[in-house]
Amino acid sequence: MYRDRIRLKSLWGKVVPPEEAALLIKDGMTVGMSGFTRSGDAKAVPLALAERAESEKLKITLMTGASLGNDIDRILTEADVLARRLPFQADPVLRKAINRGEVMFVDQHLSETVELLRSRQMGPVDVAVIEACAITETGGIVPTTSIGNSATFAILAEKVIVELNLTQPLELEGMHDVYIPTRRPFREPIPVMTTESRAGLPYIPIDPSKIAAIVVTRKQDSSANILPPDAETNAIAGHLIDFLGWEIKQGRLSHSLAPLQAGIGTIANSVLHGLIDGPFHDLTMYSEVLQDSTFELFDAGKLNFASGSSITLSAAKYAEVLPKIGSYKGRLLLRPQEISNHPEVIRRLGIIGINTALEFDIYGNVNSTHVNGTQMMNGIGGSGDFARNSYLSIFVTKSLAKGGAISSVVPMVSHVDHNEHDVDILVTEVGLADLRGLAPRERAETIIRNCVHPSYRELAADYHRRALQRGGHTPHLLEEAFAWHLRFQQTGSMLPTTTPAE
Amino acid sequence: MYRDRIRLKSLWGKVVPPEEAALLIKDGMTVGMSGFTRSGDAKAVPLALAERAESEKLKITLMTGASLGNDIDRILTEADVLARRLPFQADPVLRKAINRGEVMFVDQHLSETVELLRSRQMGPVDVAVIEACAITETGGIVPTTSIGNSATFAILAEKVIVELNLTQPLELEGMHDVYIPTRRPFREPIPVMTTESRAGLPYIPIDPSKIAAIVVTRKQDSSANILPPDAETNAIAGHLIDFLGWEIKQGRLSHSLAPLQAGIGTIANSVLHGLIDGPFHDLTMYSEVLQDSTFELFDAGKLNFASGSSITLSAAKYAEVLPKIGSYKGRLLLRPQEISNHPEVIRRLGIIGINTALEFDIYGNVNSTHVNGTQMMNGIGGSGDFARNSYLSIFVTKSLAKGGAISSVVPMVSHVDHNEHDVDILVTEVGLADLRGLAPRERAETIIRNCVHPSYRELAADYHRRALQRGGHTPHLLEEAFAWHLRFQQTGSMLPTTTPAE
Repeated sequence: MYRDRIRLKSLWGKVVPPEEAALLIKDGMTVGMSGFTRSGDAKAVPLALAERAESEKLKITLMTGASLGNDIDRILTEADVLARRLPFQADPVLRKAINRGEVMFVDQHLSETVELLRSRQMGPVDVAVIEACAITETGGIVPTTSIGNSATFAILAEKVIVELNLTQPLELEGMHDVYIPTRRPFREPIPVMTTESRAGLPYIPIDPSKIAAIVVTRKQDSSANILPPDAETNAIAGHLIDFLGWEIKQGRLSHSLAPLQAGIGTIANSVLHGLIDGPFHDLTMYSEVLQDSTFELFDAGKLNFASGSSITLSAAKYAEVLPKIGSYKGRLLLRPQEISNHPEVIRRLGIIGINTALEFDIYGNVNSTHVNGTQMMNGIGGSGDFARNSYLSIFVTKSLAKGGAISSVVPMVSHVDHNEHDVDILVTEVGLADLRGLAPRERAETIIRNCVHPSYRELAADYHRRALQRGGHTPHLLEEAFAWHLRFQQTGSMLPTTTPAE
Repeated sequence: MYRDRIRLKSLWGKVVPPEEAALLIKDGMTVGMSGFTRSGDAKAVPLALAERAESEKLKITLMTGASLGNDIDRILTEADVLARRLPFQADPVLRKAINRGEVMFVDQHLSETVELLRSRQMGPVDVAVIEACAITETGGIVPTTSIGNSATFAILAEKVIVELNLTQPLELEGMHDVYIPTRRPFREPIPVMTTESRAGLPYIPIDPSKIAAIVVTRKQDSSANILPPDAETNAIAGHLIDFLGWEIKQGRLSHSLAPLQAGIGTIANSVLHGLIDGPFHDLTMYSEVLQDSTFELFDAGKLNFASGSSITLSAAKYAEVLPKIGSYKGRLLLRPQEISNHPEVIRRLGIIGINTALEFDIYGNVNSTHVNGTQMMNGIGGSGDFARNSYLSIFVTKSLAKGGAISSVVPMVSHVDHNEHDVDILVTEVGLADLRGLAPRERAETIIRNCVHPSYRELAADYHRRALQRGGHTPHLLEEAFAWHLRFQQTGSMLPTTTPAE
């Protein structure tokens, strides 16, 4: 029975089928839904919306924490429900619609969306749809495997629909820390001084009269599409572990390093996993997504505490961890993404931020989002929040893509998400470039020597040599800066045809 | 007599000529000097260094707050003293040496330099040379018209040289607030909750035994090279005042707006000056440089409080303000640039940040530093610190340069300092583009319509139209993205020869 999860009994009468709850959402509205990297997303109301859109015009602005699971972005796209989408997505069908210009996608730093809503520079939010594992005696909403932007959506929305998910373990209650910054001009410092700091409530506090409907669901989170570590991700992890060992030797870091952040995805997850074999202990995490590696580090006795905004696991890890999630209580905290990604906290804690680059250039500028400068992949996500303010800002990628037809290190990135000022360390399976304190010409030498794949190294060095002859603080040949990208578009490879393609 | 300014009498014996003090600086050393936007710079020791370099090899790494006055960067460059320079400069001769690759210039966010020094990711600082208007009874150094990075340089350096400048009014004492963040992992929130918050001491606290020499000087600060407002800067200010008026009408801002920041230079200064004529009152500033406009707003009764890291004035304003600087006491505070530019404080206060772009593109990416993507102008300065974390991030520029041969709005910027994620409002004399909540395609339409000069508008629209046919979230024609820049290099104008150049 679900009623024991709705502890404010006056709300029992609000339980309705998803179709009925979805009627609260009308054409033209702005809807804020829970969901962050496939976890804790609303799973029933969006499907009901898509179904309704078959028979009536229904276009909405959809805001979430980050990406959704359960194919919800695909289904909403195919039903033509999305007029506008923000601040992040990772769905192949939605991505194509964005790139065709059919859905207006606003790609934002994940910490900033709710600032814009609160100051009414965006919005208003008409309806919030929030997955919960329980509703408290006072009508507070207990989130599930993510918080994301749920708290502020619920607080600002005129009406709130709660999706009570009975598959989400009740043991999640107490693992959330819902802190909302006070209003300007009287905003106080965010009281998060360590990864463990508790600053807020274990539920989202709202006026229960705003809860307009409750929908009971039983669908699980989607699992992460994480590939297992391979020779290249192991090599990347190895370079990074060597580097961190060097930093310890220099006395700049201790064996517990500094609070760790790792972006979503295979490479960053593999790198964190790799720390298990390093000479590290008493680690802490202050990240946005807690992935398989977080629980592997816990179980290996290496990790003391992890703070994030969501738990996103592979199918196997999900099946293993979720039933015993209660055993991690006291070692794990989920925060609103505004706090997990807040510049104030990141700078204060002095984080080691590890994020994945789509491509980077010989001067250390990073493209995280746009294939060939034009086609959106997923979005900047939290990489900017972390890269700018981290103690060490690290970007990782394999040096090659598409079997060698693409070099991930190029003369000039085709889109800049993080520029030279925000990038300290670059790592590919080839090696690691430590860019701290270097001028652009020095950065280029280091990157070409240490990170570019041998099949592109002489090509990159040749570009840099010829650019140096023209001079400049950051030497470039503007007429050739994108020649590699254009060659790929024209021939299917960034390598010149005179060079045998790998 | 200068002895009344050295209140710790045991230091009287440390007074030496600049040549003798300069001997403390040896070949290969890293030297941290005071100086921020031509104010409060060390004025005697660097000249003695340059002179010594005529007869012996003397190469140093020079760190400052920001740019220096009194031609010091030129003189040190001509004397071939600079091996490495950071984090900012604005000298035409040094700039050329940087662009020739003779001086390694590390262009940094102004808030970050001391973080890197403190965590020993750069440095160590061998000698600090700090201009002071007095030394306290306990050996504390009272800075002059800027603080910049002086406090941390002095705290970290092995030896400190004080330049006691007798032309700097003693009334400056008490106008500084020297707060240094506590060490990680025990760093506390920065206790700056309003523009006026006092968090630290009115002097730089150091062990007086580190003061190895005191040099007495009488040279004034250089004045700012500020041009008077013209028709275009007035038009830019007018658009911005209209916009701010609209924001008040929408209830998003009050008539006291939000704490204001304006970058160094003519346009930003003119825009702030323009606020005198707007319907605003009880304004506050939380900026890095306090320029003529700050004192004009004070004297017009519009401004209640100004916080900065330096006071940089035109020659006329300097002559007027400096003798009566004491009359601004209680309304003005100078902070270390780490604090004036700190992400934590900027995000907390919710600042309106107004900075100058060198060029921006149709999607709202901003280039603040590199002419034609290669030649360094000055550096990113504090523009990134403010643009990323401001409540409203505004960039201003005239739509044309070089008599119309250059459009400041281009298809793709040749270097990215601030990307689309960090830019809310763009203004040229043509008009204002409000980019909040817009997707790239919408941003392009707005920017082309509102900001591009009519002589380039159809050219920009044509590029965007053709790029749209290729599709993408951010449509571009990579093979043409820099065609305007290349045309300027080849023909002296970004306009095609078929179009009559202005």
